[in-house]
Amino acid sequence: MGNKDAKYAIIVAGGSGKRMGGLVPKQYQIIGDLPVLMHTLNRFHAYDEKMEILLVLPEKDFSFWRDLCLAHDFSVPHTLVKGGASRFGSVSNGLEGIASTEGLVAIHDGVRPFVSLEVIHESYVEAAKRGSAVAAVSLKDSIREVFDDGHSSYRNRQQYRLVQTPQTFQLAKIKAAFAVGERDFFTDDATVYENQGWEVHLIPGNLENIKLTTPEDLVYADFLLNKSR
Amino acid sequence: MGNKDAKYAIIVAGGSGKRMGGLVPKQYQIIGDLPVLMHTLNRFHAYDEKMEILLVLPEKDFSFWRDLCLAHDFSVPHTLVKGGASRFGSVSNGLEGIASTEGLVAIHDGVRPFVSLEVIHESYVEAAKRGSAVAAVSLKDSIREVFDDGHSSYRNRQQYRLVQTPQTFQLAKIKAAFAVGERDFFTDDATVYENQGWEVHLIPGNLENIKLTTPEDLVYADFLLNKSR
Repeated sequence: MGNKDAKYAIIVAGGSGKRMGGLVPKQYQIIGDLPVLMHTLNRFHAYDEKMEILLVLPEKDFSFWRDLCLAHDFSVPHTLVKGGASRFGSVSNGLEGIASTEGLVAIHDGVRPFVSLEVIHESYVEAAKRGSAVAAVSLKDSIREVFDDGHSSYRNRQQYRLVQTPQTFQLAKIKAAFAVGERDFFTDDATVYENQGWEVHLIPGNLENIKLTTPEDLVYADFLLNKSR
Repeated sequence: MGNKDAKYAIIVAGGSGKRMGGLVPKQYQIIGDLPVLMHTLNRFHAYDEKMEILLVLPEKDFSFWRDLCLAHDFSVPHTLVKGGASRFGSVSNGLEGIASTEGLVAIHDGVRPFVSLEVIHESYVEAAKRGSAVAAVSLKDSIREVFDDGHSSYRNRQQYRLVQTPQTFQLAKIKAAFAVGERDFFTDDATVYENQGWEVHLIPGNLENIKLTTPEDLVYADFLLNKSR
């Protein structure tokens, strides 16, 4: 059942955005005239308008979101999935929302609206070949490891990568990986996948693909959108 | 000889800015109506107008820089020091330009004009107490370590810090540390210092304190400066 070339995207926005400070969670805040999440969905739709997009939101926000879509005349097709108690729970719900076990799924942070179409493309191409494809970028700054006693040591920054999303997987494998239940050391989808003993394959991300976390990030986001007009 | 409370700053801009692409090295490019380096010097001068500032530049740029200062009516007092073949050489020359062995010296990248006055202040206060104070920030993204064979492993991002400047030291200690000569594993001033067996003390940096590395960074920098007017 299913089509091995089918593409899915799970856009994860289950959180309440506590770090942002404002009353409106960051995924709904307006940048360049549209809520953050709509920019993110637009990117995946622009890459492939036939792909199936699942948007994971807190269930209490569903009607608010539908109103937002009407207000902004937002027509990118997508299915709403209710968020879980954690990121793991939210992604699990998203995976359960996909009936097929064939094809590829990109799991992407809702608050990363600046992922490039090239990175989305490469993530599907490489995941098809390798099982997984996780966007990651090199470090611009030096890095040090800190220890519990407060000491720190130099590390070679060329041996590290900062991990973004999309994290794209063969659907059968990532479904199997999420079937084990949540563990403390699951910090992202890649760690769930590699817990099966499978290799996480890194691909180059794009530098602008930041996670909008602080009020300053939103200012930067507005800047990027205005610049590209 | 000297004053144990004396404050010095070595602003390092010895490089030719190859990554920036343009003919004009990034430290001279104009953001918010002034060359990047003048913004950086302004920050230290704004923190303490009595401190001694040494600016390390390629010797071939000295007359160009003096013309720039005249053109921009730039009056922050500073001493020019010629750059070395590497960052280590440039900082060494800066340290040799300070006659005293007492007091504190902040070593700072010329292309980090957004360091906050609070971070500058804390770096001197903590270096006076601890010997060293190196600005560093937490990671917003997950991190993985990559190995020579292409494999990668999850690391706990809370155990890592991205290192910025200023890197501030007691003058006698950092002079002694630089006296050993250059080594391959010296990537910043902190690694030179800890090579003596001394503890590098990290302090919180500010997130805006980015190193202007790419053309996109300059566009963003210009935006930040215009916004704050």
